[in-house]
Amino acid sequence: MHVSRDPGMERSLRERAPPLLTDLYQFTMAYAYWRAGRHQEPAVFELFFRDDPFGGAFSLFAGLHDCLLFLRSFRFTDEDVEFLRSVLPPVTDPAFFQFLRGLDCSGVTLRSIPEGTVVFARVPLMEVAGPLAVVQLLETSLLCLVNYASLVCSNAARFRLAAGPKRKLLEMGLRRAQGPDGGLTASRYTHVGGFDLTSNVQAGFLFGIPVAGTMAHSYVTSFTSLAEVRPQTLVALNGADPVDIISLTKDWLSRVCEFLGGEPGKICEGELAAFLSYAIAYPQNFLPVIDSYSVGCSGLLNFCAVALVLCELDYRPVGVRLDSGDLCRQSLDVRRVFRLCGEHFSVSAFDSLIIVGTNNITESCVLLLLLLFQENEIDVVGVGTHLVTCTRQPSLGCVYKLVEVRGIPRMKISEDPEKSTVPGRKAVYRLVDAEGRPFLDLVCLAVESPPEAGVSLSCYPLMCDSSLVSVTPAQVTCLRQEVFTKGQVRTGCDCAQITVAVS
Amino acid sequence: MHVSRDPGMERSLRERAPPLLTDLYQFTMAYAYWRAGRHQEPAVFELFFRDDPFGGAFSLFAGLHDCLLFLRSFRFTDEDVEFLRSVLPPVTDPAFFQFLRGLDCSGVTLRSIPEGTVVFARVPLMEVAGPLAVVQLLETSLLCLVNYASLVCSNAARFRLAAGPKRKLLEMGLRRAQGPDGGLTASRYTHVGGFDLTSNVQAGFLFGIPVAGTMAHSYVTSFTSLAEVRPQTLVALNGADPVDIISLTKDWLSRVCEFLGGEPGKICEGELAAFLSYAIAYPQNFLPVIDSYSVGCSGLLNFCAVALVLCELDYRPVGVRLDSGDLCRQSLDVRRVFRLCGEHFSVSAFDSLIIVGTNNITESCVLLLLLLFQENEIDVVGVGTHLVTCTRQPSLGCVYKLVEVRGIPRMKISEDPEKSTVPGRKAVYRLVDAEGRPFLDLVCLAVESPPEAGVSLSCYPLMCDSSLVSVTPAQVTCLRQEVFTKGQVRTGCDCAQITVAVS
Repeated sequence: MHVSRDPGMERSLRERAPPLLTDLYQFTMAYAYWRAGRHQEPAVFELFFRDDPFGGAFSLFAGLHDCLLFLRSFRFTDEDVEFLRSVLPPVTDPAFFQFLRGLDCSGVTLRSIPEGTVVFARVPLMEVAGPLAVVQLLETSLLCLVNYASLVCSNAARFRLAAGPKRKLLEMGLRRAQGPDGGLTASRYTHVGGFDLTSNVQAGFLFGIPVAGTMAHSYVTSFTSLAEVRPQTLVALNGADPVDIISLTKDWLSRVCEFLGGEPGKICEGELAAFLSYAIAYPQNFLPVIDSYSVGCSGLLNFCAVALVLCELDYRPVGVRLDSGDLCRQSLDVRRVFRLCGEHFSVSAFDSLIIVGTNNITESCVLLLLLLFQENEIDVVGVGTHLVTCTRQPSLGCVYKLVEVRGIPRMKISEDPEKSTVPGRKAVYRLVDAEGRPFLDLVCLAVESPPEAGVSLSCYPLMCDSSLVSVTPAQVTCLRQEVFTKGQVRTGCDCAQITVAVS
Repeated sequence: MHVSRDPGMERSLRERAPPLLTDLYQFTMAYAYWRAGRHQEPAVFELFFRDDPFGGAFSLFAGLHDCLLFLRSFRFTDEDVEFLRSVLPPVTDPAFFQFLRGLDCSGVTLRSIPEGTVVFARVPLMEVAGPLAVVQLLETSLLCLVNYASLVCSNAARFRLAAGPKRKLLEMGLRRAQGPDGGLTASRYTHVGGFDLTSNVQAGFLFGIPVAGTMAHSYVTSFTSLAEVRPQTLVALNGADPVDIISLTKDWLSRVCEFLGGEPGKICEGELAAFLSYAIAYPQNFLPVIDSYSVGCSGLLNFCAVALVLCELDYRPVGVRLDSGDLCRQSLDVRRVFRLCGEHFSVSAFDSLIIVGTNNITESCVLLLLLLFQENEIDVVGVGTHLVTCTRQPSLGCVYKLVEVRGIPRMKISEDPEKSTVPGRKAVYRLVDAEGRPFLDLVCLAVESPPEAGVSLSCYPLMCDSSLVSVTPAQVTCLRQEVFTKGQVRTGCDCAQITVAVS
């Protein structure tokens, strides 16, 4: 993996996730370790989640890149330490604050599954090894950086699976995320999870994700009449002279109404003015939202009129956006009108018009199913709230558990059996069958010998009461790699690993 | 309201919410306005939500402070503009980028309901007036800053109502939030909504919220035997000589086991070592998590032993934390044991021990109900996932709608009737009855004359088909104030308004 060396980006993460962005008890525990002289004892924590999200059978692992930046810049400032002095009990030995001031991750080693990998519940995704007090202090920040990134990435992958490989997916959840950073994280990791586009300009700026968007209802409703259209002319693509676009539009509109049986009295002139004004500004990027008043009685007719004007001037209109109502049904109606108009007016551009479907939280869960099972003509699906908030399960529930201290396996036994942990340092292997398909992730103790290709082995399915199963892998991959060693991010892996094929 | 003048805080928000943190269509629309010469037209947008969250009947409004900082620092850098040039269509007139480069909020006026006010669906919370292109560009950022802040603040208020006025509430959701900033926003606005404490140290540092926390299970499970306890002595509160704390603890433990019928063979020595080690480090702050192995067979007995040691040395143990199982039932058992021990061993400190209950997402909705309806002895409730992710409804769904351009009311009519907007600039009044209780929020057109105290008026309940109702207010408050005028944050309101009484 290529970890950004952009100092601005690193400073930005240092400001977003300073070492104080953690739970207070990490410091009280670190102090108790330090007071007992145990702070340097070698310890190992594992990060994993207990259940696959959304009632599904997999997750994608994400957030590693930010974790690496966090580890690399983990240092307390004088100001941090002074604040800690003010909140820890007054008996805290002043030498502890000196210790904190000198702390960094130079003793920490991180073994991790690569960013964007398909993973499963209870498999340790990351192993954080280092001095007990330091690896304890890292807990909350690492969980914060992995939990939501993996959750939203997995949610995106589920949308991608539902939408199929061809339909474009647009993330547009910034306004419904948990503040600015939640929105940015969502844009970034939904892209990893299979979304093509984002509406979030800052995400385009920071992460190079393609950005998309044309207009909102407010733009449409801000227009009242054709008098507001300025300039009232447009030059054809390869032309020289400005063409009077108002009269041309009126002409096309009456032809469209006549052909499609539209009632001129029901057509909203403000909407027509908005479409026309936008088309004059961006004649090659005409994709208006057509449901500000009524799709059938106004928006679609206005679109066809302006699109036909553009075609006459040798531009190619792009398509329409639907943002309310029954999107699947409407998309069929709209496509039918496009076909009829394309044929009737002999404009080939109408054959390749795209239909963008967007809608809010209440309908988008349904939308997901509709895309799978209901006939529709939606080419691009824009998802906001439901995608970024992960409505069905808004938290992945990753945990960070101690598994070894001074080489001794540690375990937590809980009143809730599922909260008990599996002790000891582990190795994780992905077993692949003869057709090259992964069929099993094997968690062993690190001290056990690794599975071998072609050799049968017996294992217990995790968290099941089932008996031993016997499998023979055709190929074995070690899933985790050492990505951070003694304060340094390891090179040798590539950013390309971030892209996941989920479809 | 006092808006922070801390340059670090302002820079930090500038970095968190730069003007590029918005949807691309805001720029394409701004360009189309600019191209048509409409960008300076006076326009008015309203920000509101359509339904009260969580199936409830109110919300708290929050996020205003960040909105004011955002408006004050709203300016595009050269780098921002260059990026926009690369993503907007190539036909975009270069003069538009010059226009963007010079843009700020000096023409913008914001009228807003005060931070932390109880508000209701469909009441316009903010009115943003200014040049059409500018107020359009502000949409996504303002929504992003208000939506989650208000949602999580409202969720916190519901927990406060359920927990009653006396029980302490601790926010501990950082690890399950949407990244670092989501976690900080959660800590900040759950405090506004009625939480007393946060586990998030950075939130304490930035916002002065009291921080709390002692230990996690990993601390407990990191210990194996009493040999790891160092130092093995503790000086009494007002004493001079170190006391051998190991033998003292063993002695107390056998007395506790004998009295309570505990089986020494079932007691986890590692847990005892962990408790003791923590007590030596922080003898005045002893509040261990007691469910790492078994509350009844080990944790509670170990706690009592160490707490009795502390009492003997004149320290006051603080209490215990329960983090799994049936918290209400366990809290009753634990309280009973505290009472028995306090009486039997004549230690008054046991009468004031506190019980902290924390648990994860799957149980916390239930916990909320239990606190209301089931007998329990929980003094402090720690809530993480369910609080910060707002599981039941992870988005408030605030929208930003155009209501007036050039003095002309604007409206959106939608295929979904509830998505239609109420046109025109409005005024919002809170009507108060003779007992000083608010009983109705009245939305009128700004041009209508305000309601008067003692004068009967007729109004329509919003979004209901009900007929006219007649009311007579004893007192009338204008709910919104002008908080940002022509680029400047108005002074005169006070930060104290941030604190809300919801119980």
